[in-house]
Amino acid sequence: MKRLDARAPDFEAAFTSLLANREAESARVDAPVAEILAKVRAKGDEAVCAYTSRFDRLDLTPETMRITGAEVKEAASGVPQDLLDALNVAATRIEDFHRAQLPQDMKYTDSDGLTLGQRWTSLDAVGLYVPGGKAAYPSSVLMNAIPARVAGVKRLAMCVPTPGGVLNPLVLAAAKRAGVTEIYRVGGAQAVGAMAFGTETVAPVDRIVGPGNAWVAEAKRQVFGHVGIDSIAGPSEVVVVADAKNDPRLVALDLLAQAEHDELAQSILITDDAAFGHLVTEAVETELKTLSRAAIARASWRDFGAVIIVRDWEEAARLVDRLAPEHLELMVDEPEALFARVRHAGAAFLGRFCPEAVGDYVGGPNHVLPTSRTARFASGLSVYDFLKRTTFISSGPDALSRIGRAGVALATAEGLEAHALSISERLKIIDRG
Amino acid sequence: MKRLDARAPDFEAAFTSLLANREAESARVDAPVAEILAKVRAKGDEAVCAYTSRFDRLDLTPETMRITGAEVKEAASGVPQDLLDALNVAATRIEDFHRAQLPQDMKYTDSDGLTLGQRWTSLDAVGLYVPGGKAAYPSSVLMNAIPARVAGVKRLAMCVPTPGGVLNPLVLAAAKRAGVTEIYRVGGAQAVGAMAFGTETVAPVDRIVGPGNAWVAEAKRQVFGHVGIDSIAGPSEVVVVADAKNDPRLVALDLLAQAEHDELAQSILITDDAAFGHLVTEAVETELKTLSRAAIARASWRDFGAVIIVRDWEEAARLVDRLAPEHLELMVDEPEALFARVRHAGAAFLGRFCPEAVGDYVGGPNHVLPTSRTARFASGLSVYDFLKRTTFISSGPDALSRIGRAGVALATAEGLEAHALSISERLKIIDRG
Repeated sequence: MKRLDARAPDFEAAFTSLLANREAESARVDAPVAEILAKVRAKGDEAVCAYTSRFDRLDLTPETMRITGAEVKEAASGVPQDLLDALNVAATRIEDFHRAQLPQDMKYTDSDGLTLGQRWTSLDAVGLYVPGGKAAYPSSVLMNAIPARVAGVKRLAMCVPTPGGVLNPLVLAAAKRAGVTEIYRVGGAQAVGAMAFGTETVAPVDRIVGPGNAWVAEAKRQVFGHVGIDSIAGPSEVVVVADAKNDPRLVALDLLAQAEHDELAQSILITDDAAFGHLVTEAVETELKTLSRAAIARASWRDFGAVIIVRDWEEAARLVDRLAPEHLELMVDEPEALFARVRHAGAAFLGRFCPEAVGDYVGGPNHVLPTSRTARFASGLSVYDFLKRTTFISSGPDALSRIGRAGVALATAEGLEAHALSISERLKIIDRG
Repeated sequence: MKRLDARAPDFEAAFTSLLANREAESARVDAPVAEILAKVRAKGDEAVCAYTSRFDRLDLTPETMRITGAEVKEAASGVPQDLLDALNVAATRIEDFHRAQLPQDMKYTDSDGLTLGQRWTSLDAVGLYVPGGKAAYPSSVLMNAIPARVAGVKRLAMCVPTPGGVLNPLVLAAAKRAGVTEIYRVGGAQAVGAMAFGTETVAPVDRIVGPGNAWVAEAKRQVFGHVGIDSIAGPSEVVVVADAKNDPRLVALDLLAQAEHDELAQSILITDDAAFGHLVTEAVETELKTLSRAAIARASWRDFGAVIIVRDWEEAARLVDRLAPEHLELMVDEPEALFARVRHAGAAFLGRFCPEAVGDYVGGPNHVLPTSRTARFASGLSVYDFLKRTTFISSGPDALSRIGRAGVALATAEGLEAHALSISERLKIIDRG
């Protein structure tokens, strides 16, 4: 963990080093992934089953690739009721927020007499990748699936590896609650290939979302263009801006909630009180003694954690913008005023009783957010990812006669004669009355 | 050109072949592009000037990389007034449409007492790539630059190669009108590198947009993640749905306006009248005798053109959805009704007096649109490409006490103890009053 003081002469250099790339160099898997995708495209189910046998020690046939409704129901019946209730609270709140997010169509007639607009329509089919084993988070199923269904996507196919055939009941319960329409016990690059190109059993989708390992990420990169994909998530981060009125232990827990995700996660406290900063770092050490994921959290905090002392919140806002964090907590007296000064953050959590973990589960807004400073130009997952716009222009002869000549002039200047003629020949017809 | 009849037994096979990928296999340039990007990142201006000397036969220094305001003014002064007027008509209409497109922020307090919302902010800086030579379209400068400025982007840097030092006056006039803030006479992968990583002279940007050759496209692919990019455009297409009441020559010109872009472009007529289809193909042949870009248009029409005879417009709408065309013209009696049945198209042009070329220049909506069937999941360029969303959650103790327990349950189920504690420890404080 680093301590930085904005008044120190070496601050700029120390701060810049915090912005450094935390991407781990992942093994190059482009060639094996390309081979898997080509095989799945050429041989369909046969290839998918062969790879599943090899990678997941699971013998499938086209008939058993799909997890049946009965299996989902049975698995979900083993989930304790309080967890199902919690899942339902989360799902309902996520649905409500994303429904509020739905954009309106637009249509207007302008002074030249043209009717212009844009119309939103949902994608027909979406594929959701869910990692197997420990990385399978039911909350992630809700966050990826619900915006698609709220957007109006009819087909929502999910692929989840089940190494050795073991199903994850809470993940299946989340998929059921979120409205996933079909689930396949297939993972890895072969799952991405099946969803992108289709097989005899899996119909192709238009967009693939959801987190995955390096093979899945590379497969998504390679099928991009053929289908849409979501952004490839990097290591995650939180910036907590907190004054000395806060309980240091709560701030420490918020920092550790980020750090426990991943050794590459980054947790940064920005405060205007150096003594409070010390209290928080002491509290972090205390919590690390008992935290179940202490090994991961300790590595993250040691390598990438930071406490930054600032003169005032104005300075804090400027530093936040340079960090452009995925998550931003504002635990100060007037969080709205400070939020208004910040430009770049994936999601903000305002107030002393709004830890980031609320947003991971039950807040409502999406927890799939731009990582690694990409909040400078990117946004979290939303209904927009499952909608596309068609713009439209409607013109009659009067409107065309008002704007057509400018179009002819520009088309001619660009040397596109048929473009120019397609307008000018209509103008002639209009002029002839 | 192919003739297809939806009633013919072999229709499905013939139609499916129309959907085949038209991407040309482009030469692999990933290794040389990676080298250029690495050099630009390490050596800045020095590398940019060296590559410009090599590829564009132009000797630059850091002082002469930027095209001065005086140079832009002088170049623009050579553009005929009627062209400047046309540029202004186009720019004003594009501004108006994209201003209407600006989304609203959202904020509401829900029944649990949480205040939720999302806020749109613009990117700080955008880079616009403009190809040199013949492919430099002033309309493309307007279409890429104006949405960025309307979105509120402060810095809009443009890179355009000027082989041999020759400036394109109309492109510079378009850049000036569109509000580009700085212009560099640099092209290729080195321009993309300069904008992505920054040099002594070119400050880095957050997103790079605009068309380019294979080197530019590959460079954009490689810097993606570090900055945002737009989608890589494939060959372009139009579907014209027209009844027999239309002038066959106008329909032919609309089909040729697409075909004249590129040998890989695709122009498809869908009509319910076989005889009208024949008249249109005859008119295409007549126009090809005199069209300045006949060689390109003829190749496109020969290899990828099609006339499809349908039973009715319902069938036409289903085929349009499978084609998901970049451009869709509806030259029928009730274009709005037909448009309502279509789900997948980049941009639609409604009525007999609304040729697609209107949309290329002066309509107002963007002409940068999803190509090659990607309208199934992608949209045209818009103000959204230059904005990002920050979602926010504001919670006090009452609100947290209503939803917190569900969050604790899910965090615990996912094995994330600090997540659970960051909520449960606050709940304890609240319970203690």
